[in-house]
Amino acid sequence: MTPAAAAPPSRAYRRLSVEERRTQLLGAALTLFAHRAPDEVSLDEVATVAGVSRPLVYRYFPGGRQQLYEAALRSAAEQLILCFAEPAVGPPTERVTRVLDRYLAFVDEHDAGFSALLRGGSVAETSRTSTIVDEVRRAAAEQILLHLGRGTGTGSEPAPRLRMMVRTWIAAVEAASLIWLDEGKQPPASDLRDWLVDQFIGLLAVTAATDAETASAVAELLPLETAAGPAGRLADRLAPLIGAAAHLLPPH
Amino acid sequence: MTPAAAAPPSRAYRRLSVEERRTQLLGAALTLFAHRAPDEVSLDEVATVAGVSRPLVYRYFPGGRQQLYEAALRSAAEQLILCFAEPAVGPPTERVTRVLDRYLAFVDEHDAGFSALLRGGSVAETSRTSTIVDEVRRAAAEQILLHLGRGTGTGSEPAPRLRMMVRTWIAAVEAASLIWLDEGKQPPASDLRDWLVDQFIGLLAVTAATDAETASAVAELLPLETAAGPAGRLADRLAPLIGAAAHLLPPH
Repeated sequence: MTPAAAAPPSRAYRRLSVEERRTQLLGAALTLFAHRAPDEVSLDEVATVAGVSRPLVYRYFPGGRQQLYEAALRSAAEQLILCFAEPAVGPPTERVTRVLDRYLAFVDEHDAGFSALLRGGSVAETSRTSTIVDEVRRAAAEQILLHLGRGTGTGSEPAPRLRMMVRTWIAAVEAASLIWLDEGKQPPASDLRDWLVDQFIGLLAVTAATDAETASAVAELLPLETAAGPAGRLADRLAPLIGAAAHLLPPH
Repeated sequence: MTPAAAAPPSRAYRRLSVEERRTQLLGAALTLFAHRAPDEVSLDEVATVAGVSRPLVYRYFPGGRQQLYEAALRSAAEQLILCFAEPAVGPPTERVTRVLDRYLAFVDEHDAGFSALLRGGSVAETSRTSTIVDEVRRAAAEQILLHLGRGTGTGSEPAPRLRMMVRTWIAAVEAASLIWLDEGKQPPASDLRDWLVDQFIGLLAVTAATDAETASAVAELLPLETAAGPAGRLADRLAPLIGAAAHLLPPH
């Protein structure tokens, strides 16, 4: 099925408000930019998918492809930031599991565009697109710190190490997502998600081992965790390893 | 002290072989590109620092600044790859500690250039510079896999999860290095190094909890670790946390 067949030209003649038309064009752009590198998408295709003429696209986006790309990226960024919102109730590792589910669904849906954007090297990349990506990372970090009881406005502002830990984990999640896309989306998203949650728990544990503030955040959250949840499953699976490492501990 | 004062013009009149001259120009370029974004370095400055004329720089690097930048980057990449080499003897966590010491010294020495390169968005970034960066990452991953007994040619080729784990940790190290540079090189490099080693141990442990091949690599390496080394220090510090997580484990 060609894009033209998917969106018949007749749609061009529907009377849409300015806002509706803009949303429609952005939707067409997002669909195209999600699955291809920005350099591979032409304005003609956006017009075809939206079922409108090329001049109409230019009327809404006089800056052409670059402006459309940046607008589509901003729209995708807003959508992704919404994925991070999660009520601060229940076991924290179950909250991070749900957020990662939504994040990985987003990565899955925007595969080629996500890769192209984060790998860099595209001509469509500018300081504006970098700023949008950094805003998403900052929003993700802020959400995680909130759940750790150390977000902005909680009265317990995060110390440098805890903030660095959160940003490092976000980088690890991005890297793992890119590798996952490279490997044809293997392992299944739910396996990747569970492993990334395990990484988060491991990172919190080793950071708590040397940083007092992380240790106090962990001490507050640990009672909320259950044997049946992600932390319990990991603890259970780590037990044999802890036994095998007995020679590392001083004799009691 | 101005660059001209640091490298008096008289050096221009020393008779150097072609290879020596090229090395000298590359050295001058590396010094400049290490501490500034590539777009901020001019060919005139390279000539001044090397104590030669601008036409002489062009004779060796007809492609101008871009060619010089790529040659300097390649030279820096070779230097960094040499940092990764470490004899496969002694506790593995002590080996990774030594490699990270050398890596962080490199990051410290090439601060602004390292940031500019890895953050992207510079006009000097091309598919060639991305290829060089990826070669460094691949070399790092290959070295780590060798120490895990799963490198190319060891007869035990790595399974996807272990390889993904190593690449994820490398991304975390890069991210932490960039944050470290942003924060004015705080905490001290030795603290950052110890934390990154702890992260590696944590990542290995949680990955071993669900991946049989990682578990078997860990089982082989664990007997080499000592109570006085990084793994022992971490185990000792984690002991209270493991106690506090007792409610997560099924009753015995």
